[in-house]
Amino acid sequence: IDLVILSTPMSEYPKFFSSLNKNLNHNSIITDVGSTKKNLISLKKKKLSKNLDWVMSHPISGSEVSGPKYGNTNLFKNKWCIIIKDKNVLKQKKVERFWKSLGSKIIIMNPDDHDKIFSVTSHLPHLIAYNLIKTAQDFQKKKNKNLIKFSAGGLRDFSRIAASNEIMWRDIFFENKTNMIEAINLFMKNLKDFKKNISKKENSNIIKKLINSKVVRKQIISQKQDISKPDFGRE
Amino acid sequence: IDLVILSTPMSEYPKFFSSLNKNLNHNSIITDVGSTKKNLISLKKKKLSKNLDWVMSHPISGSEVSGPKYGNTNLFKNKWCIIIKDKNVLKQKKVERFWKSLGSKIIIMNPDDHDKIFSVTSHLPHLIAYNLIKTAQDFQKKKNKNLIKFSAGGLRDFSRIAASNEIMWRDIFFENKTNMIEAINLFMKNLKDFKKNISKKENSNIIKKLINSKVVRKQIISQKQDISKPDFGRE
Repeated sequence: IDLVILSTPMSEYPKFFSSLNKNLNHNSIITDVGSTKKNLISLKKKKLSKNLDWVMSHPISGSEVSGPKYGNTNLFKNKWCIIIKDKNVLKQKKVERFWKSLGSKIIIMNPDDHDKIFSVTSHLPHLIAYNLIKTAQDFQKKKNKNLIKFSAGGLRDFSRIAASNEIMWRDIFFENKTNMIEAINLFMKNLKDFKKNISKKENSNIIKKLINSKVVRKQIISQKQDISKPDFGRE
Repeated sequence: IDLVILSTPMSEYPKFFSSLNKNLNHNSIITDVGSTKKNLISLKKKKLSKNLDWVMSHPISGSEVSGPKYGNTNLFKNKWCIIIKDKNVLKQKKVERFWKSLGSKIIIMNPDDHDKIFSVTSHLPHLIAYNLIKTAQDFQKKKNKNLIKFSAGGLRDFSRIAASNEIMWRDIFFENKTNMIEAINLFMKNLKDFKKNISKKENSNIIKKLINSKVVRKQIISQKQDISKPDFGRE
């Protein structure tokens, strides 16, 4: 066996090691597509035979749907793939070539930076989307109003992210716990400030913040991380 | 003059009344596209001549961009337009016909229900998006990491909403203050619970919430409030 790609929710990984340790040899390569890395480094140390190599990767692609019926040949095309710096340079290069052959652009990172960066660019946004949808559901129950019908003004965007696979995201939230808590705390501090701005109608404070936010959209588009069409080109 | 449509940020409305009172008569109709309504009812009572009619409307359409260069002939097509129940039934019907002629679907509401519903389906999502982008910016500054580059995993969706017009949204947040504060409080309570779930790895609690959230996406799509394609059909 040349290559094994672990591509299940991360809580399933521990189940595979007795089989990997039995069936692979020092020529084989293991990689994965897990969304957090420090936990996988620990897992590797604990469970993987010392003569086997696991070069870690994280392709930044995918969507709210999962399963073979949503297979997409362009899934990785022009998308970043993070590779965790490995002491086996030869095998790291092979894993890089593999992702490049699927169209990915490669970035090398250490596990700590990886987990910190994605706690903010991906994990916190998912938690916040789940939390907003839960809040809308609670409100709907409490006030007996139909919110779904009027979701086009913003709520619908969050519902897409909050439709993502629950096992995958439970694993990510739990495995990146420390960074998540830090990100949630920073988010809550900022939200309290916004609440105060609204409550006291602090005009210049709030305007300054709303204007500053706009820059990010332009940066994301200029770095080709999203399409430039208004409303994602939805009709 | 048959019809005047107030379509500026709401904080500009007070400027128009001396001119409206002077130039319109009892045959004219005023309407608007403002995103909150209880405040406009007060404004009408205070500023508008008693012989003039202002039937309020709120088309649920638009995007993160503004200005004439983003004009779109299908802007209102198959979108909801909320009309506030008016004592002048004849003029209310005329305003309904106007929006229908642009392709809108009409719903009649009272100002209180309107402001409560949109505080959750639109105003809170916008505030949360602004807050998430601010949090990412703060993190980026603090940790000196490039987040924009890796925004495709979730953050980019929030950046679109957080690129909306700052004057328009400042006005909405301020004018719907009471409902906003209530919505923020409910959101913060839920986020604290999520933080506890993560911190204590409360498995069954978190899985239950993540599963429950998925339903909303399906409802939104079945009510044709969003496109069904994964990732909004982005390539």
